[in-house]
Amino acid sequence: MTHPLQLTPDGRLRHLLTVEGLSRPLLTDILDQAERYAGQPSSNRGSSGSRGLKVPLLHGKTVVNLFFEASTRTRMTFELAAKRLSADVLNLQIAASSTSKGETLLDTLKTMEAMQVDMFVIRHEASGAAHFFAQHAAPEVAILNAGDGRHAHPTQALLDMFTIRRHRPDFENLTVAIVGDILHSRVARSDIHALRILGAKEIRVVGPRTLIPAGIEAMGVTVHNDIDSGLADADVVILLRLQKERMVGAFLPSTGEFHRDFGLTKARLETLKPDVLVMHPGPINRGVEIEGDVAYGERSLILEQVEHGIAVRMAVMGMILGDEGAAA
Amino acid sequence: MTHPLQLTPDGRLRHLLTVEGLSRPLLTDILDQAERYAGQPSSNRGSSGSRGLKVPLLHGKTVVNLFFEASTRTRMTFELAAKRLSADVLNLQIAASSTSKGETLLDTLKTMEAMQVDMFVIRHEASGAAHFFAQHAAPEVAILNAGDGRHAHPTQALLDMFTIRRHRPDFENLTVAIVGDILHSRVARSDIHALRILGAKEIRVVGPRTLIPAGIEAMGVTVHNDIDSGLADADVVILLRLQKERMVGAFLPSTGEFHRDFGLTKARLETLKPDVLVMHPGPINRGVEIEGDVAYGERSLILEQVEHGIAVRMAVMGMILGDEGAAA
Amino acid sequence: MTHPLQLTPDGRLRHLLTVEGLSRPLLTDILDQAERYAGQPSSNRGSSGSRGLKVPLLHGKTVVNLFFEASTRTRMTFELAAKRLSADVLNLQIAASSTSKGETLLDTLKTMEAMQVDMFVIRHEASGAAHFFAQHAAPEVAILNAGDGRHAHPTQALLDMFTIRRHRPDFENLTVAIVGDILHSRVARSDIHALRILGAKEIRVVGPRTLIPAGIEAMGVTVHNDIDSGLADADVVILLRLQKERMVGAFLPSTGEFHRDFGLTKARLETLKPDVLVMHPGPINRGVEIEGDVAYGERSLILEQVEHGIAVRMAVMGMILGDEGAAA
Repeated sequence: MTHPLQLTPDGRLRHLLTVEGLSRPLLTDILDQAERYAGQPSSNRGSSGSRGLKVPLLHGKTVVNLFFEASTRTRMTFELAAKRLSADVLNLQIAASSTSKGETLLDTLKTMEAMQVDMFVIRHEASGAAHFFAQHAAPEVAILNAGDGRHAHPTQALLDMFTIRRHRPDFENLTVAIVGDILHSRVARSDIHALRILGAKEIRVVGPRTLIPAGIEAMGVTVHNDIDSGLADADVVILLRLQKERMVGAFLPSTGEFHRDFGLTKARLETLKPDVLVMHPGPINRGVEIEGDVAYGERSLILEQVEHGIAVRMAVMGMILGDEGAAA
Repeated sequence: MTHPLQLTPDGRLRHLLTVEGLSRPLLTDILDQAERYAGQPSSNRGSSGSRGLKVPLLHGKTVVNLFFEASTRTRMTFELAAKRLSADVLNLQIAASSTSKGETLLDTLKTMEAMQVDMFVIRHEASGAAHFFAQHAAPEVAILNAGDGRHAHPTQALLDMFTIRRHRPDFENLTVAIVGDILHSRVARSDIHALRILGAKEIRVVGPRTLIPAGIEAMGVTVHNDIDSGLADADVVILLRLQKERMVGAFLPSTGEFHRDFGLTKARLETLKPDVLVMHPGPINRGVEIEGDVAYGERSLILEQVEHGIAVRMAVMGMILGDEGAAA
Repeated sequence: MTHPLQLTPDGRLRHLLTVEGLSRPLLTDILDQAERYAGQPSSNRGSSGSRGLKVPLLHGKTVVNLFFEASTRTRMTFELAAKRLSADVLNLQIAASSTSKGETLLDTLKTMEAMQVDMFVIRHEASGAAHFFAQHAAPEVAILNAGDGRHAHPTQALLDMFTIRRHRPDFENLTVAIVGDILHSRVARSDIHALRILGAKEIRVVGPRTLIPAGIEAMGVTVHNDIDSGLADADVVILLRLQKERMVGAFLPSTGEFHRDFGLTKARLETLKPDVLVMHPGPINRGVEIEGDVAYGERSLILEQVEHGIAVRMAVMGMILGDEGAAA
């Protein structure tokens, strides 16, 4: 399935709604653009390492963060990315309940379009919300999906790929294990698409049966309900955040049991490849998906992921809205 | 009644509190200034039509949106206008209850004046709040009324006039019908003042008896309790938003009945002049004041109103705070 | 006790956590830098007095206001200071309860550091919170304490000193009385440290026994439980805000009684030195610590304090983050 909705007729990025259907050259181009904004790899960086770079690329453009689901941290990354490109940024937090009907969403979109907003960064609890906005957006307005329901979180996947590539550009050799609540995770879906586009050797999903959707093998992954087999020989381990509201009940007996069975403990880490890369989209639940010592240990790339998230979001915004961008 | 409070001794704009008492030349000057910031009329605009224009006029100035009444949408328009003029903008949402006493309001004003704020954009549920602030403001501080109780909403009236003028600059030939809850509407009051200043031929207020204030004829309008007589031969129809908290009860039997009797349906629209202009300050209540198809139909100027709202607010801010402005 | 944590090895400001332990030259240097940003003393200022000055010193830097305790007014002063230095500013209001555990605070700090934030302005209800952040901050990240529990509020003390110095630079001749709830006041602690560093002749704390901490004489102050003896011959009176939640109960019989016994009334003011300076960190409780007429009377410096607060915060941010700053 392709998503031409997010591409211009000549194949450039017009919206970013999902990783699914992006070509390898386009996805690679995004990562290459992000290199312009990311600092030197931290191992090469002196103690006076340069901080965030500010460029005038989007001066005069307006970006609105339209969040129907609260996420201070994700909102910050988009706000920082836009401000470092010199765009004007407005933050709107809207209770999803008050705009649940499609036509009310449309009124909101049309009204803000009329205010000459150039880009909407949209987070919504409903899968498909970003597509809905993109389908109805005026030609000069771009939509950036910041997470829609269980569906997609494309900038998270792009920053994950960027982070992996900095350490292991040889995707064709990589075995990647995605661990935890696959069922509810838009991050898992987007990461799987991105890893397949980049040609990862093997993609595994690892978790309890209740948290792995039936038929996910069709996405080109193997399923492991046992963590030890799931992590054996893995080059990259991507842990997913367990949402608190789903931690206990129908899906899970207890968070303690989850940690015992699927958490990345220090002891478990020592059984893995010595150069394994440990990732997590954050914020972490210490003692659930991951032990605190592991999260800030030497194999962890969690803070690099955050840092790269700004660069990747700058790249996407710049490609869509910049002078040579599709919507410029 | 004149309002010299908002004018300098030589007749320039110092605050904007109300449309009442503005001279026709000054009101026209505001609309002319707004033409500098508004895009080309949409009919003349290519698909690559330029978006919001950013100018350095208010670089170094500080505008504070001081909202005692929540209105995300209105706040956004002022925030965008100020940012496109390169001002620094701070948003403050204050619960009116916590500052209900006049002296506490004054403490807030004096404190923020001391922070060298140049302009306060004030929305308050109490009629007269903006005047109160202007009466006590320091000489170098400007007040912009973003809606005070039932009293005035001057920038809304100005953007309405701007929008009408783009289509029908011949105010002396225009019959304008304002429809709905006139009683509680600051928009209606401000529009009536503006239309009279610009010399509209006839101004009608149309609505149920319970929602039309007694004695409003003194403002120079005619009253219609029947929509068909009210809209007959009208050149412009301005629908007002029905506030939800007033929809049912003492004033109205039901929103369905209101829609039947006073809503602008497609069927009713077809009985009107073929070139009638349909306007609404937004956000619309679909199926109450207006049918959804009419709101986005070809006679509707609702989205133009939103767009022009930014330009008009930029014009007012620039005239007051810009290099040649009264408070510069 | 020194606090080298906030200084670089060569004695420049790296964080600002507390006034305690600052040398007189460094504290004086901050006040001198603030003179660059403060307007002319109001007595010398024409009616067209220049408003806030905008300079490009921190262009490209990112300042995050991280408030775990709500304070719109204080947040505004830091936001304005950073914007007038051309920094990008993000505001985060975080419920303290959701991040009460130290390791969760650390996750927040580390995550935001990874976003290449240059400075965190931190307000927290726990004494020591700013130190905790500074202890764990990366080398390129600065912490500015905007008030932590009962411990310190250094920028408030600096702006108080700046304000006093503009009127009375002869600290060695000054008797300063700090009046009210000393027990819970971080402002009192920070002011006492600053006044001692600048060599004030005499520092008195004045209040009911229940609101004066035992052993405070060790800080170099004298204790007065009677307001008339406390204010006799005082050159400066600093009134403290009485927090509402502490107004009545274990500490105080009633606010009326407090006002009678310790409030600065017009009658009481007339018994003081004719050139006494009256100060209050704001927001004032009229009729509790101070009578309204006194607050805006000719001896009051309350609004000057607000104005100087912006200049002092600009100075501190510029010294830490500017081109010659410790963290630049």
